[in-house]
Amino acid sequence: MIIVLRPDATKKNIDHIIKKVKKLGLKPMVSKGVERTIIGLIGEEDILRVQPLEAFAGVEKVMPILKPYKLVSREFKGKNTIVDVDGIKVGGKRIVVMAGPCSVENLKALMGVGKSVSSSGALVLRGGAFKPRSSPYSFQGLGEEGLKYLKEVKAKTGLKIVTEVMDTRDVSLVEKYADILQVGARNMQNFNLLKEVGLSKKPVLLKRGISATIKELLMSAEYILANGNFNCMLCERGIRTFEDATRFTLDLNAVPLIKKLTHLPVIVDPSHGTGKWFLVSAMSRAAIAAGADGLIVEVHQSPEDAYSDGAQSLLPKKFDDMMKGLKPVAKAVGRDV
Amino acid sequence: MIIVLRPDATKKNIDHIIKKVKKLGLKPMVSKGVERTIIGLIGEEDILRVQPLEAFAGVEKVMPILKPYKLVSREFKGKNTIVDVDGIKVGGKRIVVMAGPCSVENLKALMGVGKSVSSSGALVLRGGAFKPRSSPYSFQGLGEEGLKYLKEVKAKTGLKIVTEVMDTRDVSLVEKYADILQVGARNMQNFNLLKEVGLSKKPVLLKRGISATIKELLMSAEYILANGNFNCMLCERGIRTFEDATRFTLDLNAVPLIKKLTHLPVIVDPSHGTGKWFLVSAMSRAAIAAGADGLIVEVHQSPEDAYSDGAQSLLPKKFDDMMKGLKPVAKAVGRDV
Amino acid sequence: MIIVLRPDATKKNIDHIIKKVKKLGLKPMVSKGVERTIIGLIGEEDILRVQPLEAFAGVEKVMPILKPYKLVSREFKGKNTIVDVDGIKVGGKRIVVMAGPCSVENLKALMGVGKSVSSSGALVLRGGAFKPRSSPYSFQGLGEEGLKYLKEVKAKTGLKIVTEVMDTRDVSLVEKYADILQVGARNMQNFNLLKEVGLSKKPVLLKRGISATIKELLMSAEYILANGNFNCMLCERGIRTFEDATRFTLDLNAVPLIKKLTHLPVIVDPSHGTGKWFLVSAMSRAAIAAGADGLIVEVHQSPEDAYSDGAQSLLPKKFDDMMKGLKPVAKAVGRDV
Amino acid sequence: MIIVLRPDATKKNIDHIIKKVKKLGLKPMVSKGVERTIIGLIGEEDILRVQPLEAFAGVEKVMPILKPYKLVSREFKGKNTIVDVDGIKVGGKRIVVMAGPCSVENLKALMGVGKSVSSSGALVLRGGAFKPRSSPYSFQGLGEEGLKYLKEVKAKTGLKIVTEVMDTRDVSLVEKYADILQVGARNMQNFNLLKEVGLSKKPVLLKRGISATIKELLMSAEYILANGNFNCMLCERGIRTFEDATRFTLDLNAVPLIKKLTHLPVIVDPSHGTGKWFLVSAMSRAAIAAGADGLIVEVHQSPEDAYSDGAQSLLPKKFDDMMKGLKPVAKAVGRDV
Repeated sequence: MIIVLRPDATKKNIDHIIKKVKKLGLKPMVSKGVERTIIGLIGEEDILRVQPLEAFAGVEKVMPILKPYKLVSREFKGKNTIVDVDGIKVGGKRIVVMAGPCSVENLKALMGVGKSVSSSGALVLRGGAFKPRSSPYSFQGLGEEGLKYLKEVKAKTGLKIVTEVMDTRDVSLVEKYADILQVGARNMQNFNLLKEVGLSKKPVLLKRGISATIKELLMSAEYILANGNFNCMLCERGIRTFEDATRFTLDLNAVPLIKKLTHLPVIVDPSHGTGKWFLVSAMSRAAIAAGADGLIVEVHQSPEDAYSDGAQSLLPKKFDDMMKGLKPVAKAVGRDV
Repeated sequence: MIIVLRPDATKKNIDHIIKKVKKLGLKPMVSKGVERTIIGLIGEEDILRVQPLEAFAGVEKVMPILKPYKLVSREFKGKNTIVDVDGIKVGGKRIVVMAGPCSVENLKALMGVGKSVSSSGALVLRGGAFKPRSSPYSFQGLGEEGLKYLKEVKAKTGLKIVTEVMDTRDVSLVEKYADILQVGARNMQNFNLLKEVGLSKKPVLLKRGISATIKELLMSAEYILANGNFNCMLCERGIRTFEDATRFTLDLNAVPLIKKLTHLPVIVDPSHGTGKWFLVSAMSRAAIAAGADGLIVEVHQSPEDAYSDGAQSLLPKKFDDMMKGLKPVAKAVGRDV
Repeated sequence: MIIVLRPDATKKNIDHIIKKVKKLGLKPMVSKGVERTIIGLIGEEDILRVQPLEAFAGVEKVMPILKPYKLVSREFKGKNTIVDVDGIKVGGKRIVVMAGPCSVENLKALMGVGKSVSSSGALVLRGGAFKPRSSPYSFQGLGEEGLKYLKEVKAKTGLKIVTEVMDTRDVSLVEKYADILQVGARNMQNFNLLKEVGLSKKPVLLKRGISATIKELLMSAEYILANGNFNCMLCERGIRTFEDATRFTLDLNAVPLIKKLTHLPVIVDPSHGTGKWFLVSAMSRAAIAAGADGLIVEVHQSPEDAYSDGAQSLLPKKFDDMMKGLKPVAKAVGRDV
Repeated sequence: MIIVLRPDATKKNIDHIIKKVKKLGLKPMVSKGVERTIIGLIGEEDILRVQPLEAFAGVEKVMPILKPYKLVSREFKGKNTIVDVDGIKVGGKRIVVMAGPCSVENLKALMGVGKSVSSSGALVLRGGAFKPRSSPYSFQGLGEEGLKYLKEVKAKTGLKIVTEVMDTRDVSLVEKYADILQVGARNMQNFNLLKEVGLSKKPVLLKRGISATIKELLMSAEYILANGNFNCMLCERGIRTFEDATRFTLDLNAVPLIKKLTHLPVIVDPSHGTGKWFLVSAMSRAAIAAGADGLIVEVHQSPEDAYSDGAQSLLPKKFDDMMKGLKPVAKAVGRDV
């Protein structure tokens, strides 16, 4: 931690800070520069995070040196984490594609989409039974009934299941059906929910909040790992910017950067990340070229009848074309799909 | 709802849309312009919200005409809502100031701050017993113990209590102690939590998410009202922008705009909205001049020892000075403080 | 300047950096912490700004200590700058209101607005003769003819003139007519234009770019002062955020913050900052309460016929009401209007 | 154009609007809905753009139907534009890589980089002679001397030259040396500069402003085409968001979207778009997979000595590796590099 003092900081201010810092068991090193005095602190920086040094008289700014996350960092674990999703490996050579409708609507439609995406090469079925909707008057999901449909499609197709859990009270229920517990973007900083899924044995897919920095995403993942669950995948799904021609701005910079900072697999959601079905294929190719370990894509048999997110859903035929187009790109970067 | 067709939309596309729309019980009006065909839809627009019209072949864009919120709108209720907080009226002539520490740390400190802010003119005590913290290693709050301390300070000072509830499982507990249930910025779209506080009889203070539009804030309030709780106050507390000289950008445009769109009271949080204690007084004055119905301000007896948010907390003495400075501004806009 | 090394930085990396830094005439101070080595550099930090230290092997990040601006800073000049605009003082006790149409359209209309705003208490007339328009097919301004009209209104009313200059080639022309040279938001980083107005003797009103940080605004002002023109006023006019209910987000945090960091006067533009005429009065009051030294407001005799920005223009009558409402607020913060 | 009226709009308001609109030669179509009256306008929408309909009494909002750009749109020209850069075709099957230092510093270094990037497969040399720098105290470029060095390297290597022009007064000078006139991000809305390069015969590379929407970028390109220069390339170079782990957020959504909306070639700048040299290769691959027609990449022989942007520059060896890695990705999407 570096404390930069104001040019008008008095000796009394400085002595007061030094005294406080020493009390905390840290060793201050004072450098008097031409224009500023700076105090470097040696010792466990975490002690200082809880201390609001900027509130001290005479302090201009405080600059942390170390990253606030530990267990998720590459420094903690150099090797890539491979998450085992009921036998499917995420984070290895094979790029794992998750596909399916935004919401589970009925068994027949889900089975149709499931069979179709499975035959196109998807390994995991997505579908929401609990739906976060900005309007109280929108379809809120089928709940446990939807989870049961997912399980039936799994039984028929072998697809693994990823589905969202929104409420701490539902974790034990969703766990019974899902192979991956999805924490949605709106809940990325629902810390109690993070703790609950951290206590689960099921893998977690943690989506980045629409205005969360990469550092905050990693801090939220840290909650999951710190509670004992190391089977955590991170998902870039678009951030909110001023651009309104797309629903969100898919931040692919995040892919190679997260891979550098952490050992966890990275999944990209081009459906939410663009909000436009006609951009999904191009951005899926880009995600793989950037180094993503997987994709999560919305597919619906009749987007014009979808209960949610129709504008960003692919028809099964378009998804099949997309999968074919991904193969050479994956190969070009040394991966399979 | 207006449907704008692509220049290359075929007659078949148009007929297909018209057929679908009629099936929904709506009356389409087709205007063939020089460059585009447009279909206006008359009837209940809400029917169309669930229908992803953008997914239809030939459609370029769909433009809603009506606002998606109802109960919170000025059109639903023209007169200002006055929220009764255990006898204190929020939304009337008197500007209500809520003040106190970010976190409840111990009884003695809380009592000290409570007595002090009360004598300076605050009517409500703020203080977090459940704390959303971005790091799992930060202080997470005292839980029920903290709620008890708040109640003790209320007993001594007469201050009402506003405190955050973060988890659907805690609503019934927090309700027992709080006069106002605060839903924090990170939970503005935790819809299950919104439903729970909507079912409560206690007033709610709903904070705007750091990247939530005003429309989304109003939709979240709609969840609370739609579940039966009309005692809802909205809180502007700063949005996330590219500017990094302040912690957030306090969006005071939101104050007169929300007052225009809705009948609910608006509270401003200049402490989080700036992140710098030395900006709090100026922005409090500005908030009142812009038409806010109240303020929520962080005050700590020793910011340099605070467990959280020390950099944005005022000393009791500075808070007292601030309160004195607010009086003439409130008077200038026809209010009291 | 503080250089934080990566945990895997080798001794060779460190020695290489130290050698380079010494060559530049700086004194490095190495602190070996438990997890990281840090090199503090003492001496003229500006030498280091030109050196891309992050490109060195082994470096994780580089943190500057000092502010990159000098002449505009409070440290350079403690006392507020009072800018003399042909006899009107900006930055003193009196709040200076600038008002008029977005574009100069014709003499008659301009004269009408000029007389009206003058009688309401405005001291400066705004009006664009050179207009930056996002479409090449929009009205681009009257050019020199517009400048002449401004001068005629000045002759009749005594109002001083603020008008935009967009092109380095036009500075000498605009100077002949204007009392204040306005550099628009889109040109805040048109550095050649900044140099030219820096060489002028006329006061400058520098508007903040819609995505410029406060630091960047101050750096742009530094260009003007560094070229010799200390009569510089800064203008907050709204920043671009995700919020789309208003045209821009007026960042009033900027007002007290800029006043703290610099000695230059701060003007607020609530017309562009909100984009909605019905928010202008409330935000003008807020700006003054926050400490602004002046306002620049769009007024048009018939907003529905305006060539530009009609939706954010006030009618003269509404402007007059607004001015009356500003008086008590100004008084409440120890100012006049 | 669709005019949505307020629920409280009077018959007088409506009649007034209809009268005005008819006077403009447009045909209004009034639909009285259950909750709102809507007026659709048929005729040349451009007439209405100059009319501030939102300023009319009774109007709630105005929604344009047509895109404000014409010449740059796919509707105007269906086939991709191929820009001829002194014999090199941009926009065809071959992906064109432009590479070189941020600033031209001296002939020897430039020649070294030029030879190196040429042998790695770059076809165009980048290098700034006029440099927009946020600080007046930073290196501002060599001016014409720098342009001469670029020409010498062209003579030796055959590389074409792209270099920035910042000032309307410099266009005729830069034209003499450059094969592509670059308009930088900060000047994307310097409309006078756009007009000047629009009058030039040399191809233009127009960079997206850091907070410009795609629509605004296309409107700026429209300025260039409307002045007669159809040889315009668009460049995505990162937008400003809240994320601070990267210098900017490279918006690759823009690539397929711009290709859909317009016939102009799209170039991606991963150096500025990330600000980190270690992200450049991955994002270059992603850009090509997303459909970019070219790349512009910073390469410096000794990034640690660069006068600008060292942290985002590749060493020639790393650039060579990157080029090798691009080949299979280009092939995977049916292109060459």
